[in-house]
This record gives sequence, C-alpha cells and structure tokens, in this order.
Amino acid sequence: MSLDRIFKAESVAIIGASKDESKQGYQAIKRLREEKYDGRIYPVNPKESMILGLKCYKSVRNIPENIDLAFITTPAHTIKNILGELGEKGTAGAVVLAGGFGELGEEGKKFEEEIVNIARTKGIRIIGPNTPGMISIDKRINLVGLKDVPRGNIALLTQSGNIALNLITEASLKSQTGFNYYVGVGNEADIKFHEYLEYFTEDPDTKVILMYVEGMREGRKFLQQASRTTLVKPIVLYKSGRSVKGSKVVGSHTGALAGISAVSQSAFKIAGIFEVNHPGEMFPVAESLALLPMLKENSIAILADGGGHATIAADYLTEMGIKLPELEKETKEKLAAILPPNASLANPVDVAGGTDRNPAIFADCAEILLDDRNIHGLLIVGLFGGYGIRFAKKLAFIEEDAAHRMGKLVGSSGKPILLHSLYNYAKPHSLDLLRYYNIPVYDSLEIACKCVEAISSYGSYRREYHKEGNFQLNWGENAVRDGQKIIDNALAEGRKALMEYEAKELFRAQGAPISEHYLVGSEDEAVEVAERLGYNVAMKIVSPHILHKTDAGGVMLGLQNEKGVREAFTKIVNNCKKYNPGADIRGCLISPIADKGIEIIIGTKIDDQFGPVVMFGLGGIMVAVMKDVSFRVIPVSEYWAETMIDEIKSSVIFDGFRGRPPSDKKAIVKLIQKVSEIVQAYPLIHEIDLNPVIVHNEGLTIVDARIILNEEKAPKRAKL
Amino acid sequence: MSLDRIFKAESVAIIGASKDESKQGYQAIKRLREEKYDGRIYPVNPKESMILGLKCYKSVRNIPENIDLAFITTPAHTIKNILGELGEKGTAGAVVLAGGFGELGEEGKKFEEEIVNIARTKGIRIIGPNTPGMISIDKRINLVGLKDVPRGNIALLTQSGNIALNLITEASLKSQTGFNYYVGVGNEADIKFHEYLEYFTEDPDTKVILMYVEGMREGRKFLQQASRTTLVKPIVLYKSGRSVKGSKVVGSHTGALAGISAVSQSAFKIAGIFEVNHPGEMFPVAESLALLPMLKENSIAILADGGGHATIAADYLTEMGIKLPELEKETKEKLAAILPPNASLANPVDVAGGTDRNPAIFADCAEILLDDRNIHGLLIVGLFGGYGIRFAKKLAFIEEDAAHRMGKLVGSSGKPILLHSLYNYAKPHSLDLLRYYNIPVYDSLEIACKCVEAISSYGSYRREYHKEGNFQLNWGENAVRDGQKIIDNALAEGRKALMEYEAKELFRAQGAPISEHYLVGSEDEAVEVAERLGYNVAMKIVSPHILHKTDAGGVMLGLQNEKGVREAFTKIVNNCKKYNPGADIRGCLISPIADKGIEIIIGTKIDDQFGPVVMFGLGGIMVAVMKDVSFRVIPVSEYWAETMIDEIKSSVIFDGFRGRPPSDKKAIVKLIQKVSEIVQAYPLIHEIDLNPVIVHNEGLTIVDARIILNEEKAPKRAKL
Repeated sequence: MSLDRIFKAESVAIIGASKDESKQGYQAIKRLREEKYDGRIYPVNPKESMILGLKCYKSVRNIPENIDLAFITTPAHTIKNILGELGEKGTAGAVVLAGGFGELGEEGKKFEEEIVNIARTKGIRIIGPNTPGMISIDKRINLVGLKDVPRGNIALLTQSGNIALNLITEASLKSQTGFNYYVGVGNEADIKFHEYLEYFTEDPDTKVILMYVEGMREGRKFLQQASRTTLVKPIVLYKSGRSVKGSKVVGSHTGALAGISAVSQSAFKIAGIFEVNHPGEMFPVAESLALLPMLKENSIAILADGGGHATIAADYLTEMGIKLPELEKETKEKLAAILPPNASLANPVDVAGGTDRNPAIFADCAEILLDDRNIHGLLIVGLFGGYGIRFAKKLAFIEEDAAHRMGKLVGSSGKPILLHSLYNYAKPHSLDLLRYYNIPVYDSLEIACKCVEAISSYGSYRREYHKEGNFQLNWGENAVRDGQKIIDNALAEGRKALMEYEAKELFRAQGAPISEHYLVGSEDEAVEVAERLGYNVAMKIVSPHILHKTDAGGVMLGLQNEKGVREAFTKIVNNCKKYNPGADIRGCLISPIADKGIEIIIGTKIDDQFGPVVMFGLGGIMVAVMKDVSFRVIPVSEYWAETMIDEIKSSVIFDGFRGRPPSDKKAIVKLIQKVSEIVQAYPLIHEIDLNPVIVHNEGLTIVDARIILNEEKAPKRAKL
Repeated sequence: MSLDRIFKAESVAIIGASKDESKQGYQAIKRLREEKYDGRIYPVNPKESMILGLKCYKSVRNIPENIDLAFITTPAHTIKNILGELGEKGTAGAVVLAGGFGELGEEGKKFEEEIVNIARTKGIRIIGPNTPGMISIDKRINLVGLKDVPRGNIALLTQSGNIALNLITEASLKSQTGFNYYVGVGNEADIKFHEYLEYFTEDPDTKVILMYVEGMREGRKFLQQASRTTLVKPIVLYKSGRSVKGSKVVGSHTGALAGISAVSQSAFKIAGIFEVNHPGEMFPVAESLALLPMLKENSIAILADGGGHATIAADYLTEMGIKLPELEKETKEKLAAILPPNASLANPVDVAGGTDRNPAIFADCAEILLDDRNIHGLLIVGLFGGYGIRFAKKLAFIEEDAAHRMGKLVGSSGKPILLHSLYNYAKPHSLDLLRYYNIPVYDSLEIACKCVEAISSYGSYRREYHKEGNFQLNWGENAVRDGQKIIDNALAEGRKALMEYEAKELFRAQGAPISEHYLVGSEDEAVEVAERLGYNVAMKIVSPHILHKTDAGGVMLGLQNEKGVREAFTKIVNNCKKYNPGADIRGCLISPIADKGIEIIIGTKIDDQFGPVVMFGLGGIMVAVMKDVSFRVIPVSEYWAETMIDEIKSSVIFDGFRGRPPSDKKAIVKLIQKVSEIVQAYPLIHEIDLNPVIVHNEGLTIVDARIILNEEKAPKRAKL
C-alpha cells in the first residue's frame, strides 16, 4: 500500500522548521511533541541548530537516517531542490503547503507538472501543493494548525481548510465521535481523490469517508474507486461550485445544458455516494452512518411530545420517501396502557404531555415501538433531555435512566434510534448518555430527518445493489473500419462536424437501426429513389458547409409525388446556394417520413470532470425548457440505461399516456447503449446529438443525427 | 381596538388558581409576580383563601372590580359557567387552556361553538381553547410556562407550543433580539389568525410577525389582512402539514392535484408573506428583517477568508437570484492596496489569510465594499470572531475594534451587513459587539444566505408592489339569468354535473368566447348543421348520464362529409346506449374542429383553507405528469392572471417556441378572469374544468368544459 508509509510515518522531516511561533514550521513540531508523536522528528533549517529541544539539521542530506514523510513549509521555488534531497533519503511522501502552482493558471500548472515529475522519478508522493496539511490521528501525526481534533472513525477529505475547520469544530462541540484522518487534498497535483479513497477503503479503522469537493482532477477514476468503496463503507459528499459564481474550476458551458450539478449528481448516485445538499448536513450525516445500524427496511416511527415537531418531521420523512407505517394493534394497546387518553397512537406517536411527570415513559414507548414488526427505527423529536430543566431537577435522573435503557435498546434490537432535542444546547447529562451509547443527538429537526434518510438510503443501497459500478472506458474498442473511414475522411477535409449522412452511416456501420436513406445528385436521381421508396418522403440538403439545414431552407418534408420531388430538389439546392454561395453542395438525402411516435433526444458530451456522458430526454419543450433529462457517465449498462428512462419525470409517456400505444423502451435502451459504445469506439468523437429520434410502438427512427469531432486531431485521452 | 384590553390588560383573573407548584394556576401567578406585572391579579379558587400572598376569591363574582383578562386553567366542562360570570365583570378576553373541543371531532366542535356563542353574547373574546397561553412582554403579562423570554420586536403567532418554545430558546441563545408578543392560537375557535395579525399590524412596537401554521380556519380573511400587513411590516411564515402524514387538518384530496402546498404557497406569495422552507430558518429570518435595513437593490458582496465558505455562499445566493456584481475598478484597487497578492478581488472577495495578523482589515474591506456603487449589502462568511481564538489573544481586541467600525458602518451607509461565523459557539466578545450594533451573527451558512434573500425579497416587494392584494369574494355578483337557469335546471333534475353543452352555454351567457356548437337530435339535423358549419366537424354525445364521453364511444372527430356525419351520429348513439342502457340521450353536439394551437387547462377548485382557487397549466403531460401549474386564489386581477402564465416553467411555449406562431396570451388572461368571475357569480359551482382549451395565434377555443355543482343545494358560503 503506497500511502501506508505516509499515514503511518515512523519519521517526519520538517523542512523550514522555525523558532518563530507564528510559523507553520514551529507549530508542526510543537503539535507533534504535544500530541506525543512516537516517531522521529527531524527539523531542517540551515540557520538553526536547535528548535524546541530538537536538533535542527542544515539540510535533508544531514539527517542520519531515511525518512518516511516530509512536511515542506518553504516557498514554491525551493521545492525542486528539496525533492531531490528527499529522494536520496528514500522519502515516501511530502506534504507541500506552498501555493503558487496550478491555481495561478497555465504557468503555475507547468511548474506543478515539473515538480510532480521530479517527485515521481524519486519515488515520492505529494500531498498538495497548496494544502493546509494532513492529520493521521492514531499515529499522532498532526501537520495542520488544528488542535484537539476529536478522534473517531470518519476519514475527512476536503478541498477547503475552512470547511475542515468547520467540521472538526462541529464534531468537538456536538458529537461523541470524530475523525481518524484528515487530508487537505490541495491542488491534487500528485495524489488524487481516488487514491486517498482507496487507502481509506482498505483501512479497517475507517467507517465513513466524508468529502468536501469543489472540482476533481480525475473524476472518472474517483467514480471507479467510489463504486468499490461504497460496497464496503459509505461516502458522504458535499459538492460546491454549482453556480458559475461559486465555481472557478467547473466550466460554465456544460452547465448550460442542464445545470452543472445534474451530471455529477447522477454520477455520484450510481457510485453509491450519499450526496448532501447543505453544508450543515455533512457532519451529522457522516456521524449517523458511522454510529448507527442501517435501517433494515425503509420504515420508522416518530415519537414526540406535542404536535409541532412531529408534524414537521412527518413532512420531511414523507417527502424523503421514508414510510411511517401504521402501528400494529398490539403496539397501540401497549402504548394506550401507559399514555394519557389524549395521546396520539398513530405514527407519529404524540405522548401529549404524558411524560411530563415521568420521562422514562419515552424508554417504555421506544421499547414498545421497536418491538413492532413494521417499525425498523425510531426518531424521537422535541423535548427529551429538557424535562429536568423545565419541570423539576429530579426528572433529570429519570431521563438519565431512560437514556441508559434506550441506549441498550439499540444494541438489543439492532434498530437505530435518533434523537432531536431542543435542549441539546444545555448539555443535560441524559443526552451525553445517549451519545455514550452511540445515539446521535441533533439540534436541527431537518438535519435529524436527513440522517434518517442517510441510514435508510445506504441500507437499501447495500441490500439491493451488490454490483460494482463500471466507469472504465475502453477507447477504440468495437471501432469498425467503415466508421473510422468516415471520421478520417471528414478530418482530411478539415471538418470538425460530420454531415447527417455521414453520422447516420457511421451509426449504421456500428449496427444501429438507421432507416433507408439515399444520397441523390440530381432531380432524376431523386425521383428514381422516391419511386423506389414509395411516396411521402423527406429531402434534406447534404453539404459540409450547411449544418443548420432548416435555417438554410434545406429541408422539405412530406413530398407526395414526382412533381413535388423535382420541385423540392431544385428549391433546396437553390435555397442553399443563396444561403451560402460558397457551400460545397453534394446533393440531397432522401428518406421515408418516419411513422408517428414519441420524440426523444439522445446526446453525448465530454464533461470536464467525468469525461464522456450521455443524456436522454423527451424532445421539444421537455428538454429545452423543463430540463427533464437524465445523465449517465459512459459506459452505460443495460440496467443503468433502463433507469435513465425511468428517471425522467415525463417517463410515464412511454407507457401509453392518453390512449397512445406504449413506446418501445427496449429500443431506447439499446440505442443508449449503442451510443455509449460508439463514443468509446471513436475517441475522436466530441459530441453526438440524435435529435429527434422517434420512438414507435415497435422500434424507433433516428430522424436527425449530428456528430462533432474533437478540436485536436489525435485523441488526448489516456486508456483508463 | 378590541384586542387592546387583552394585550394591555390592567387586571387578570386566574381561574383555577392553585397552591400546587406543578399546576398552571400556580405558575401563572408566580410568573406574573416575578416579572412584576403592575396590574391587579385575582386568583380564583373556591377552596383557597390565599395563594402566593394574594387573596384568593371563591368565584369570579366575588372579585371587587371589573376585570380585563381571565386565564382559565380549569377543565372544559367548567368553561360555560365561568364565561357567564366573567360576562358580569365586563371581561374583554379569556385565555382558555383546556383541550377537549374541536380537536376531538364533531361533538367537540359543537361544544366549542356553544362556548364561542356564550362568549360572544357576553362580549368576551377567547384565545384558544387548547392553547399554551399568551405573553404580552411590555405589559409583563406572561400566561405561559416560559420564563426569560427575550424582549424584542417580533410578534410570535404559533399553532404549536413546542415550536414557540423552540423559537424562544433559539432567540435567548443566539440573538440580540426577541419577542414582544407570543400567542398560541390553539383551536382558533374565536379569535382568528387575521385578527391577531391586524392587532400586530397596528401595534407600533411590532416590526416583524413570525408565524408557525399547520392549518387555518379563515384562510381568506387571513390573506386579506396579510396583504395589508405586508405593505407595512413583514410576515415570516412556516407552514407544516404538507404531507398527508404530517397533516390531519389539511385534506389530502386537493393534494392529489399538485401538492397541497402549491395553493398556499401562491396565496402567501401574493399576500407578500415571506414563507420559509425549513423550521431552522424561522427565527433567523425574522431577526434579520427586524434588525437590518432592507437591500435597496438586489446585489451584494461576499467577504471571506478562504475559499470554501465563499464558494458555498456564492452557490446559494446565485440560486436565490441575488446578484454578486463585479466590483468597480476603484474598489479593486483599494482592496489590492491592503490585501496580499494571492487574495481574490472578484466578488466573492477572499482575503486569503490577509487578515491573520490584523483582522481589522475586515472592517477596511467592509468600508471599501459598501462604498462601491454596485454593492448594496455585505455578507461576511467564515472565521471572523475567531482570530483571537486561533492565533493570539491580542487579536481579539483588534476584532472588537473592527466590530465597532462595521457596526457603525451599517448606520452610516444604510446598507446591511450580515455575518456568518464558525466561532459563534465560542461567544467571542467581538460577535456580541456586532449584535449590539444589530448585525445578526449566524452559525449556519445556508441560513445566513436565506436571510440575505429575505431582506432582498421584502425590500423589492415593498419597492415594486404597493397595491394591496384583493381576496374579497363577491358571491352572486355578475350572475345572469340564463346562467342561473342552466344551474337551476340541472339541480331540478337532481344532477350535480352540467353537461358540456350546458357548461358551454353558461360560459357563453357570461360573455366567454364559445365557438359555434349545435345540439342535434337526428342524422338529418346533424347533416343540416354540418353543411351550415362547413365540413370537418366534431360530434359528441349529449346525455346527463354520460360524463366520460370518450370512454363511452361518444366522441367522433374530423367528420368530412354527409356520409361521415350520418354514420357518426348513429354510431355515437348506439355506442352510448350500449355503454349505459339507461342513459337519457338528448342528441349530439356538433361543432367545427378547432384550429391548431397550444393546449391549455384552466380549472377551479374549492380549497379547504382559502376557498375558490383557479389553476392554469399546459394540457397533457405538463399538468398530469410534470405538475407544471400555477394557482391563484379567486378573484384574479389582470396583473395576477398574467403572472399565472409567466409562473409555469413551460410558459416559453406561448412565445412561439420552435418556430410556431406566438399564442394569444391576452385571451388566456381574459379567460382566467372570466372563470374567476363565473365562480363568484354562481356560488353553487364547486369545480370548473376547461380541458382542453386550444390557444391560437389570435383567440382561443374552449374544446371541452365541465362544471360540477355543490353537494348542498344552497350555498353555505358567507359573504366576505
């Protein structure tokens, strides 16, 4: 394991060690000493001989042994030399704090590449540059200016020091758990998200991986690793930079299609990642996944004292698709025996003041509810923990007893309990006791509900989907000679766009269902073909210089006879000559008018972070205005292609909406997979746009097809 | 003002006064004494002579003077008698704690009505029953078991004691402000939401009204009052009970149309109410509106130290439609002079560690930014308040100086500053200073952004819309004799549904654009009419017993000649006889086939809380699947009918989407208004369904119309 020597380093060199208390080169040494790091610490600074009681070395070369890890606090221009020296000492990793690299633009990027190349030749892996550092709690390696980081089983991976500070502070204040690792990934110049992820996946001590992401260098490798990780342990992720203003990393042009976040959301979902929508949800959701048993079925009970909190929680959970089943008759009888007559025995259960004199009744209710066969978890909302504060001090002891009982109940029933309390701020002992039993306590009702969703969602992901996602691209595989010829020919003519005719021929060569169509060069030829096809035909211009055929007057539909075909041919050619006098007009494409059906669009793009993706949606207003589309990272399996159809809101239309016959969904699935195959087969393809495709009761017709090629002649894409 | 004697009561009788510390009748007296209520307190209990040093009266009759307010803690069955006695004492109001009324169902409702009737005859207004009580802070009247309620300018109106407790606790912990009134509205049996609202509107001390609502008894009167209130001061509202599970009050049947919340959301919006989506937003949003100047234009700057928080805040604000304009050249130059070279001078501004040694630079930046003509407010996110904690204690004093300067800056610039701080929990003095200057400090980044939205949204509402909303119904107005006859006739036949023919005739009588159509009784008549209309006609069955005409085989379209018409007539009649052998078949309706255009649906319903509402949407999948519809409470003005069209996501289709000619939006507006008129004209109408209406480039065609009448023969609806 290549990162093991970094996270479990037996020796750390502090390059740029300092006596100045405000410097990182001082603080790191102080922190390592304070936290009783039990490896060797080697301060390096040519101007000092002792720092904090440790011998200081003039240079890395003078250190008397090989070193595992270097913490480099010196400026960017010094890094090259330092890496050279570290190489001689067999160093496994370097944490590089300095900025001044890729984040500054092209020049910085080149410099960054140089540094990474040097590191590679020396066998050194780099964390950063431009990172706040890293912490490996159990090894007591703390190379960040943060103290008292609470220990737990959450590995934290962020692209922002602020957010890390935020999460660590939150954990200290409100939780019984915390972190075992923290890595600020910085510029991700060398070690990438997916490599950290792989390390944490194999680390037996890590239960949950919590990530804050703005943008990714190797999105696809990340997905590949994430889909392996989530089979074993959950990943909680918050992605910022959704808006153009919020993002410098993510380009705004893909956003124009359907919101930048649509692509990443679908990608994360398929990789089994639990994406949260608000930063305030990050820590509590990770905490819940680290501490609680998952929901075995998607149904829980709510227990409350008073209506307001119960009503709000029921709203949230219902909207999240969590079931609040009716209680069994026996359960209701047992509850009725201990609750006042005005209590509500439906789900949510409202004790209606029935616990005012004896809050231990909460534990009684919890026992009864978790004993119900339809109930797989319990969310307690409102006032527990506050009876001793509101009414009489002695009630606090009763609440503590109830906490012990509820804590044990989670263990004995295997069903999770989550608690929202208005009194969390007052830190009553009963709530600390719940935490001792790994029952998380939340201040916020909406976040408590989000945590229920997380343990439900990850639980069912693990139950229902045991196959690793596939994000592996096989560039060039399945390419056929005829297809490649079409592309080569266009490139030879200096074109970036295939004509419709070419695009369709490429699809045909690849085995996609392309209906009859013929390229004709004259009126006579057109008539001959139309007679053969049978009338009611469509005619479209064929010219490499006319991409927007309708705008040029280059499309005529519904031609019913010879006269019509002759007139149309001449008119189309004349229109197009007028539209673009220099256009190379190669004739017209004749095809039968497609049968009726549902218009769909299938397109592909190259996403900045995840590479090739395919989009599916209904034609017309549903894509352009309603943005009712689904995305998948290519390659797309049959299963995931099917889910693309189900995922759009308007998918019901394919089942025969309003008396129409149902549409051939299998044909759509096959076409999506074919598109996925073609994108991989020809790495020179930049975009495909099948718009519209008409789906019939049986089969489909690709009415128009467009393929745009890459800017570069040679594909830059590495084999994954 | 009728509620003045309640909220400013000079004397309070405590009915059910007690020596038992756990009883409300004890706690209320204790609280009034502790909080130094300066009116007279009269404990009433036949079994006691002294309570807490006050003389206790055997009955209300024995009290030596008239009393303003009674706090009734005794059970439901005692209330009638007590109200009788209170009437003799000229009592203005009674707070009734007891449950056992309307919340228990029909019997309870009747009992509740009796109580209210007695109170009315005695001139007593009732708060509750089933209420936790009320607080009038300045008068030191605290009739709730809550102490230390922080004083401020927010009037709190809730339907849940829990939520009130929640908000009051939150204010104590995190804010410089609080409440001047709290009312638990309980069952709203007598005093309704709108009456409290009216009182708070006229109360000069109330700056913001904060509401938690589950359901309303008089939704329309509430809207009417709210639209007056929001011209003067903001209302912040959280509505729960959106889901069927979460709601016992709101019926689930309207929800089937487009979600229960769609109707109330649009109603609240038109009344100028700021509806929040999460309970955690309630207090902070009210606080911001109470303390800060509104944004004069919808554009602010973000100031941060480090990228993460800035990126997230930019995401949120952009999604909310808040602009983050480019800074002026001069602004950037001034910032560059005080910030390090790696700082970001775009908006968001990132000081990038430039404040680590001197956090006063935050105040410098704030001055520079608020001096920019394009910037109308400032959101500071991240670490302010924590420099003294993170780096060196002396920095805390510099932060305090900066807080003083920023506090004064809000006053001098008239532009709001809002601050999110990770260190709020640590309560550094600098953050208390900001609060002293009425700058709110938030723990949560998402809530800070929501507060920016609130001061932006309410600011622009006040600037742009100075006309009071109209929610006044004028039942029976504009009814015409021919229309009434159609309804009367159907009722006389024992029918609840008008036939299409009747519905269209009613619309025609009311001046709506109904295209030619004729009722024919035979093949010959049918042919005669079709010849007159010109061919291509549609024919539909006319029978009061066949509502689903298509299902019965009672509709044939596109009839092109005599033969077609003859065959169609016979076929339709035969089909329908077979479909329902007992059906009273009155002939067929013949009409020309409508020209092409865009299909829309206009419908009306009676909403449980707000009465008649009209719905608008695109036909077919857009309503049925996408639920892309807009609602308005009737009556609908021209302005609000126009906004109904703009509000749906697919509205772009009317502007001539995909080369089609634009649709006649004015005709849609007129039809919506006509529908609004008809619903008011005939109170017996329960539902109207115009589906589809085809909108042309000029004018529109109502293809099918359906009107359902009320269950009750006589309209129950009161004139508002």
